[in-house]
Amino acid sequence: MKKKGLLIVVSGFAGTGKGTVMKGLLAKYSEQYALSVSMTTRAPRPMERNGVEYFFADKETFEAKIAQDGFVEYACYCDNYYGTPKDYVEEQLNAGKDVLLEIEIQGALQVKEKLPETVLVFIMPPSVSELYGRLKGRGTETDEVIRQRMLRASEESQGIEQYDYILVNDDIDTCVESLHQMIQSEKQRAFRNTEFIECIRKEFVDLRKGEI
Amino acid sequence: MKKKGLLIVVSGFAGTGKGTVMKGLLAKYSEQYALSVSMTTRAPRPMERNGVEYFFADKETFEAKIAQDGFVEYACYCDNYYGTPKDYVEEQLNAGKDVLLEIEIQGALQVKEKLPETVLVFIMPPSVSELYGRLKGRGTETDEVIRQRMLRASEESQGIEQYDYILVNDDIDTCVESLHQMIQSEKQRAFRNTEFIECIRKEFVDLRKGEI
Repeated sequence: MKKKGLLIVVSGFAGTGKGTVMKGLLAKYSEQYALSVSMTTRAPRPMERNGVEYFFADKETFEAKIAQDGFVEYACYCDNYYGTPKDYVEEQLNAGKDVLLEIEIQGALQVKEKLPETVLVFIMPPSVSELYGRLKGRGTETDEVIRQRMLRASEESQGIEQYDYILVNDDIDTCVESLHQMIQSEKQRAFRNTEFIECIRKEFVDLRKGEI
Repeated sequence: MKKKGLLIVVSGFAGTGKGTVMKGLLAKYSEQYALSVSMTTRAPRPMERNGVEYFFADKETFEAKIAQDGFVEYACYCDNYYGTPKDYVEEQLNAGKDVLLEIEIQGALQVKEKLPETVLVFIMPPSVSELYGRLKGRGTETDEVIRQRMLRASEESQGIEQYDYILVNDDIDTCVESLHQMIQSEKQRAFRNTEFIECIRKEFVDLRKGEI
């Protein structure tokens, strides 16, 4: 039987490059990781494909799924539901894949409560001025949007201690590799290996009965 | 100011190669790690040097150090004291070095109680039959000694869940690298980075006051 995969929640302020880190990880270790796709009731934007960016569903379908406890987390923003369907996540975990979930803190804490073995990772900028500079440098957002994002980031920063790990994204390749190593190391935690430990103990008993 | 190092306790059954793993780690990353040297009241064996294999001390000196709370852990085996002097460990940690401590489970749990930020790693054989084979294969121990070691290992296996990580030593180079990566990842735990998180929060406040 294949060993069950790990569920990893990745959060971070807008502009810290968490999307790029996830893409990098999926590209470099495509066999090991699966990206969870969220379900939403908002209308698809041009170029968005069902099952790729999101699973698109109507409100009734979404609420029926909530009633069936079909989400590992969900939330309602701007009159639209967003959630992580449980079935896809469990299917991938059971197949031995490590599942990546890019969500915000409220969702992250919901997942941790429902599935306590989940690992929560918060991607950080090297500094706030660096983050501010990156957002300004993009030149795609107005000053007002940037101001809103920084305020939002400031609020989000209150919850960082509830994450298991923080990861500073200073260099994308280094960050991808650190995240990968972190996940590898996390798998070696004693509490995740109780079956192996039991197996070793049983072997000692068998050895005592037989050979020595 | 240099960031304080991490204290890492390494334990494992006799014959799992934990000594070789530690040596490998120290050789490969000599700048980062320091090996803690134990103090003992037993007589030096030929070729053992004071301050290298052990710090050798008489019973009075050792007991005076106990009275001064001068050990992170100590124990008495076969009428001799063995302990880890606190001063050397703290000096190295303060210098930013990660300190490796090779001790048994009772000592490991004493350290964790005294210094809860310590990371406990248990090195495991891939299987008990492999461990048994390695001990037999050495050809240096009598069957009775091997039997005693296996009994001892069987007893020690009862405490493995109290460790943070287990590390299977299947291949020495892989094991050295895994241990190194584990320590690197452990440093990224959120609770070990509260100063950095606070610093980011303060930056947000400063930014709000000033630029935006």
